[in-house]
Amino acid sequence: MKNLIYLSILIFSFQSCTEHQIVDQKAEGEKLMEASRQWAKSKSNEEYLSYWADDAILIAPGQPTIRGKEQIAKMLEANAQIPGFEVNWEPQEVYVSKSGDLAYLIENNYFAWNDSLGNQVKTFNKAVTIWKKQTDGTWKNVVDIFNEDPSITSLK
Amino acid sequence: MKNLIYLSILIFSFQSCTEHQIVDQKAEGEKLMEASRQWAKSKSNEEYLSYWADDAILIAPGQPTIRGKEQIAKMLEANAQIPGFEVNWEPQEVYVSKSGDLAYLIENNYFAWNDSLGNQVKTFNKAVTIWKKQTDGTWKNVVDIFNEDPSITSLK
Repeated sequence: MKNLIYLSILIFSFQSCTEHQIVDQKAEGEKLMEASRQWAKSKSNEEYLSYWADDAILIAPGQPTIRGKEQIAKMLEANAQIPGFEVNWEPQEVYVSKSGDLAYLIENNYFAWNDSLGNQVKTFNKAVTIWKKQTDGTWKNVVDIFNEDPSITSLK
Repeated sequence: MKNLIYLSILIFSFQSCTEHQIVDQKAEGEKLMEASRQWAKSKSNEEYLSYWADDAILIAPGQPTIRGKEQIAKMLEANAQIPGFEVNWEPQEVYVSKSGDLAYLIENNYFAWNDSLGNQVKTFNKAVTIWKKQTDGTWKNVVDIFNEDPSITSLK
């Protein structure tokens, strides 16, 4: 009987532990960097949208915060109407919390479009993206904010 | 003897757990919101600087990333030379990781200065600040990025 009690407590305490298991922060960081790179290569709006959490916010310069996937989808549609519109990015730094549920990336990105004469205009930005690990193990973006950095001339 | 083994394993597993103890994310979030508010009320550059981690980065619009406390201190000195310079902010949202080591805030801020006729110019921004819990239990800012949002007209 005594043994059974010990064993029960033991099993219970192991179960508590697994909820807060040790995370390989470096490996998770690399996984997230790769997810960010794959995101940039999205082939469709549907694929592109799949990386955002339902309640994600996008904070772009000079405009109100875009809140939630529905508003983000509208933005994607609007961007597609801009002649020569292009966006691309490359993650530079990553940090994952010890619990592996929260992380952020520092990224270089650019936005490109055509001016009224059809010449490409390109602005480089510094971006911070914040990510939450979902119950299915995938990372989803919850916050995306960026601003122009004229000192950046390439994504690397 | 059997009991002793059970007990040893039990103690060991409890010790493993305490390294990853459950964090009150809500309480930690409120603590961080309050730290951010206190930061805005800093009475000296020294106090102001104390909220940044040594390797903090500050990503302001239109300029290269400011890296580390030394560069940030130079920026504070430069800002102090701007006639009528003022900065203030108010945190809006907070999220703390399960492990309580990483967190972010969404904030409204403004920067104000005097134009060449001495009239105050004020721009409102949306900011994201990322924080890491230090070994002494205090939160330090590691990333600060913001961009202009003309739809914001007050800090609240």
